[in-house]
Amino acid sequence: MVYAGVDVGGTNIKIGLVDIKGTVIADNSIRTDKNKDYKGILEDVVGDIKLLCRQAGIDYHDVAGIGLGVPGVVDSRTGTVSYSANLGWRDVPIVHGIEVVSGIRAEAANDANCAAWGEYKFGASRSMDNVILVTLGTGVGSGIIIDGKLFDGVASAGGEAGHMIIVKDGKQCNCGLKGCWERYASATALIEQTQEAMDKHPESLMHEVVKEQGKISGRTAFIAANKGDDAAKKVVEEYISYIATGLINLGNIFHPNAIIIGGGVSNEGAALIDPLEDMVNSGLLASEHNPKVRIIGASLGNKAGLIGAAALVM
Amino acid sequence: MVYAGVDVGGTNIKIGLVDIKGTVIADNSIRTDKNKDYKGILEDVVGDIKLLCRQAGIDYHDVAGIGLGVPGVVDSRTGTVSYSANLGWRDVPIVHGIEVVSGIRAEAANDANCAAWGEYKFGASRSMDNVILVTLGTGVGSGIIIDGKLFDGVASAGGEAGHMIIVKDGKQCNCGLKGCWERYASATALIEQTQEAMDKHPESLMHEVVKEQGKISGRTAFIAANKGDDAAKKVVEEYISYIATGLINLGNIFHPNAIIIGGGVSNEGAALIDPLEDMVNSGLLASEHNPKVRIIGASLGNKAGLIGAAALVM
Repeated sequence: MVYAGVDVGGTNIKIGLVDIKGTVIADNSIRTDKNKDYKGILEDVVGDIKLLCRQAGIDYHDVAGIGLGVPGVVDSRTGTVSYSANLGWRDVPIVHGIEVVSGIRAEAANDANCAAWGEYKFGASRSMDNVILVTLGTGVGSGIIIDGKLFDGVASAGGEAGHMIIVKDGKQCNCGLKGCWERYASATALIEQTQEAMDKHPESLMHEVVKEQGKISGRTAFIAANKGDDAAKKVVEEYISYIATGLINLGNIFHPNAIIIGGGVSNEGAALIDPLEDMVNSGLLASEHNPKVRIIGASLGNKAGLIGAAALVM
Repeated sequence: MVYAGVDVGGTNIKIGLVDIKGTVIADNSIRTDKNKDYKGILEDVVGDIKLLCRQAGIDYHDVAGIGLGVPGVVDSRTGTVSYSANLGWRDVPIVHGIEVVSGIRAEAANDANCAAWGEYKFGASRSMDNVILVTLGTGVGSGIIIDGKLFDGVASAGGEAGHMIIVKDGKQCNCGLKGCWERYASATALIEQTQEAMDKHPESLMHEVVKEQGKISGRTAFIAANKGDDAAKKVVEEYISYIATGLINLGNIFHPNAIIIGGGVSNEGAALIDPLEDMVNSGLLASEHNPKVRIIGASLGNKAGLIGAAALVM
C-alpha cells in the first residue's frame, strides 16, 4: 500500500510515492503547464503517478490515496481551491477533479500546511502536538498544528502568519498591506537587505562572495559574516531579529512545543537556529514560568510538502 | 442548581451565582486583601459565596461548581496559577485550594479566557465556534476559542495577543519587549495619545471635554471628535488604526467567525466597531474569496469574566 503526495507549485509539481512510514519510494518533478486548465494539469499529475508506479514496480491499484498541496487558499473540508494567485485558480474543485481522473480517493490542503503536516508526522516535530512550521523562502509561509490537528481557520482562510504586520506602515507588501513579516524575514527580503548593505559598503567581503558564487543570494551575507565581515554580520543580525520578531509573536499567541524553521534559509543551521531560540524565549511573556518553545530546523527538506500531502490520505 | 463564578482581580474580586442559562442571580464584589496569602483570599471568596447564597435564598449545597478567572498564566489542566504579576502569585494550586475550603468542585482559567468563554457561551458570539475576544482596557487581553474550545497553548502559556509586536523597536512595554500591540491599542495608550495631542493643540476641544468630565480618559478624544474637533478626530483615527493592525494580524492567522471587542473602550459602539470591521476585512488575505470576519462589541460587559468562569464548571 502506497500513497501519492503531490506538491503543486507555480512552476513545477513535485510528485512522490510514499509509504506508511513516510519514506519516499519514488519521486520526480514535472512542469506546471499553465496553458492547460486545472483538469489538464491533473491529468499530467495522474500520468506521472502511473509512471512512478511502473518505475518502482508498484501496481497503480495499490495507490490508496492521493494528497495534494496547493499554494493559496484551499478549503480542505470541501476539497476546493478557493484562490491561488500562483496558479491563477479560483474555486477549483481539485479533490473531485483528481478523483475523477485517477479513480483514487483524494484530499487537498494548502502547501505550507502540508509541509507542517509532513514535519509533524515524519520529521522534526514528531511527537509534539503543538507545533508551527515557518518556511523562509520567496515569501514566509506557515502551517499550524494544534493538539495534533492542522489549524487554518474558518474556510481554511487563516494560517497566514507571513502577513502578520510587524512594522506598522512599513514596507509595501504584494498582498496590499504594509509592513508584513514576509517583507522583512523572507529569503527575498534577505537578498534585498544584502544588496542595500553592499551598495553602502563597497569594501565588504560580500562583493567577493557574490563574484565567487556567480550571483547574490540568501547565502551571501551568511558566508561573508562567517569570514568576519562586519557589514555582513550586521545584515545577518538584523535579518535574524526580523525573523525573531514574528516568532515571538507566534510564541506569545500559540506557545507551541516548537517552531520548525524550513525553506532555503534554514540550511544555515545553528548560525540561524541558536540565536533565534535565545531571542524568542527571552521575548516570551513570563518565560521563566513556562516551558521553553524550541526552535528546530526542518528535517524533510523540500520533500516535506509532498510527504505531508501523502500523509493527508494515510 | 447554580454555579459560582469568580473573577479575581488585583484590586477587587467579582463574585456571582450564575444559572445554567448564564443569568446572574446574585453578584457583588469584595476587596482583594493582599495582606493575606492565597488561602486567606480563597476563604474570603468562599465566605462571600455563602453570603450570596443566603441573600438569594439558595442552599449552599446547590452550588454545583466554582469557576475562577485569574489574571496571569493559569494552567487549566493542573489548576495551578503559574504566575500572576497582579496578585504576586507563583505556582499557586488554586483549584485544589478552593476545593478544600469550599468542598465544591472547581476549575480555573486565565481571566481573559473566562471572558471569551462567557461571550461564547452566553454573549455576543453565541453559536460561533471560532472567535477571539480582545479586551481594550489597562492592557490588551485576548481569549481565543477554536472549534468551540478555549485555546491557550502548551501549559496555558499562550493566548497573549496583546504582546504581539506591531511596531518593531517601538515603544517600551512593561513586559520587556518593545512595540507591543497593547502599548498602542489599550485604553492606557489612548489616554497617552490624547494627552500628546492636547499638548500639541491648545485650541482643541479636548481641553474643554477634560474640564467638563473632570479628568482625561479614554472617552475624551471620542467625545471631542464627535463634536467635530480635528485634533481629536486624528487621535481617534490613529488609535483605531492601531487596533486594526493587531486585529488584521489575528484575522490573517486565525480567520475566526468573529472578533469580539470588550473592555471600556468598546462602549464607543459603532464609532469604533464599524470602521474596525471595514479596515480588518480589507486587510485580510484574499478577502474577496473568504467569509468575512465580523467585528462585534462584547455584550456581557464587565460580568463576562465571572459568567465565563462559572461556565467553566457547567
